[in-house]
Amino acid sequence: MTMPDTPVYDFSQGPSCPIPINEYPAVLMAHGGGGRLTQQLIERMFVPLFANEALAQLHDGAVVTIGGIRLAMSTDSYVVRPIVFPGGSIGELAVNGTVNDLAMCGARPLYLTSAFIIEEGLAMEELWQVVQAMQRAALASGVALVTGDTKVVDRGKGDKIFINTAGVGIVPPGVDIRPDRARPGDLVLVNGPIALHGMAIMSVREGLEFETEIRSDTAPLNGLVEAMIASCPDLHVLRDPTRGGVASALNEIARASGCGILLNEDAIPIPEDVRGACEILGLDPLYVANEGKLLALVPPSCADDVLAAMKNHPLGAGSVVIGKVVEEHGGFVVMKTSIGGNRVVDMLSGEQLPRIC
Amino acid sequence: MTMPDTPVYDFSQGPSCPIPINEYPAVLMAHGGGGRLTQQLIERMFVPLFANEALAQLHDGAVVTIGGIRLAMSTDSYVVRPIVFPGGSIGELAVNGTVNDLAMCGARPLYLTSAFIIEEGLAMEELWQVVQAMQRAALASGVALVTGDTKVVDRGKGDKIFINTAGVGIVPPGVDIRPDRARPGDLVLVNGPIALHGMAIMSVREGLEFETEIRSDTAPLNGLVEAMIASCPDLHVLRDPTRGGVASALNEIARASGCGILLNEDAIPIPEDVRGACEILGLDPLYVANEGKLLALVPPSCADDVLAAMKNHPLGAGSVVIGKVVEEHGGFVVMKTSIGGNRVVDMLSGEQLPRIC
Repeated sequence: MTMPDTPVYDFSQGPSCPIPINEYPAVLMAHGGGGRLTQQLIERMFVPLFANEALAQLHDGAVVTIGGIRLAMSTDSYVVRPIVFPGGSIGELAVNGTVNDLAMCGARPLYLTSAFIIEEGLAMEELWQVVQAMQRAALASGVALVTGDTKVVDRGKGDKIFINTAGVGIVPPGVDIRPDRARPGDLVLVNGPIALHGMAIMSVREGLEFETEIRSDTAPLNGLVEAMIASCPDLHVLRDPTRGGVASALNEIARASGCGILLNEDAIPIPEDVRGACEILGLDPLYVANEGKLLALVPPSCADDVLAAMKNHPLGAGSVVIGKVVEEHGGFVVMKTSIGGNRVVDMLSGEQLPRIC
Repeated sequence: MTMPDTPVYDFSQGPSCPIPINEYPAVLMAHGGGGRLTQQLIERMFVPLFANEALAQLHDGAVVTIGGIRLAMSTDSYVVRPIVFPGGSIGELAVNGTVNDLAMCGARPLYLTSAFIIEEGLAMEELWQVVQAMQRAALASGVALVTGDTKVVDRGKGDKIFINTAGVGIVPPGVDIRPDRARPGDLVLVNGPIALHGMAIMSVREGLEFETEIRSDTAPLNGLVEAMIASCPDLHVLRDPTRGGVASALNEIARASGCGILLNEDAIPIPEDVRGACEILGLDPLYVANEGKLLALVPPSCADDVLAAMKNHPLGAGSVVIGKVVEEHGGFVVMKTSIGGNRVVDMLSGEQLPRIC
């Protein structure tokens, strides 16, 4: 291998920025919101520049082959505000989120790295609580945190704590789960009520009070996924609808596969208090983040088996079919509404819920 | 696997914080400085809680075995300020730093994840330049960036851009490079002049001007390490002296192995302008960060071969022997000074150079 000199950093060199500078001269909150602008940044800037097969899959993680083993890799940084919320904290999120991204590749998550960016002045006790939450989450999902990094930034240059985790897992032989494997006829399943995580965070931020507290659904989905794969090794697609919610996740699948997706509004489980909170805040639950939910696209021949396996798992008791993949309106998600009409369910555009994870 | 309920976050539960709260009620900049307080945080809080064999090695990365393959994993978040500096940018650092951590495990780096935390308002053009720098660095080191994440935080809650990378690589059969493998008699080698990266950053921050610009040494060391291993598969220890510099890295090795390390001050290569800048700022070059240097502890039988292989590589032309491992003063680093005395070279305590990487 030849080793070039240390690269010289020169603002005048290289191709011009692929994001239209006159339209977006600076990074907006929405570029991190998981919707259209995030997608534009990834597809126009990162994917062409880092061009490689694994990245181009636009999956929740990358699957690479090392010595005959299919290794899934994933990473996420967690910047949720506040760092503690009903049902969990940034600590659980940081472990469960990356575990889930690996599981969505059909992988068995094994090892995680964790890196902290701490704002100077964070109470040591708060750090300790977050780290303990990570430990509990790691035990619950069966992964080991094997290496890490700690950086501290000046007061006012961070926000208490940001956590990055990256993880690796093994994809079992025969499993091939990818967003572009959606096929007409596939049923769309979800493992329970949606929009809990986002509304738990928003309720705290906005000081909303309900009869029952809305709690985040943060949970490790790898055990559920294992049970689902055991019931149907030919699972086509898995996706956890985090930032951008169910709507954005399904749009990504529709785009990747070129298929249409038809949702049945009446079938989508939304708890009453969540629906109420969404109405108060003017939010559509379809775009609200989840942290313990998955969408599964399953060939009709094994949909019953998968649904049974899901219902049999503690994290899948509320599993239901919410739609199907169709040949019509390829690349788009359409919802049959409760009042009998059809409406296009677009990708999230703009920033609905900043710093939700 | 049993799946517990979503954990409840309760500040009253669990063991008490292992960092003495009355001494350190809050996180200080020094907890991220790579010195004594960083070590205390890692050894008292993270290692006991996440207890596992890989983490307990306190290496630059973790080595785990998957399906008979030894996989090295490493992660680092980069928070350097300013994000562009003479000789590079946060983009090169983010790739080279993690590549080097993997190489220090004796691994061949293969795949990297990258995760951005961007402050709202970062100029799109700056992001583009950073991402291009990452691309160039990835090409230079031969790694692929296979998956990523983008988060945006509000203005004043970040600082332009923080980048996390995590990487995996394969440790070739027969290679066993660990800090606790230092043995009396081993020679300590370095691949060239030290303290360049830290002083490049500090010169910019402090507005110092010299006849020649001090440039960061950021570079990928995996090619150099491959050549060194080829010349001596029984290399004992590799370490890149980043945060905390040569002094802290050698102290970690001395502690891990229980051996003493004896440095020869006259042999340590420090460029004149770097020495001058250090004097002006009251810094000891032994504690200043490097981003393209490695320390190698090599059995005497193959020291000549390793040194020859290093000098033959573009990134090792300035390689020299700077010390040796001794039976005396186990766990401590001692330096034979230019004026003929001996002094203990302690671990960095406190925060010398904040946000250097």
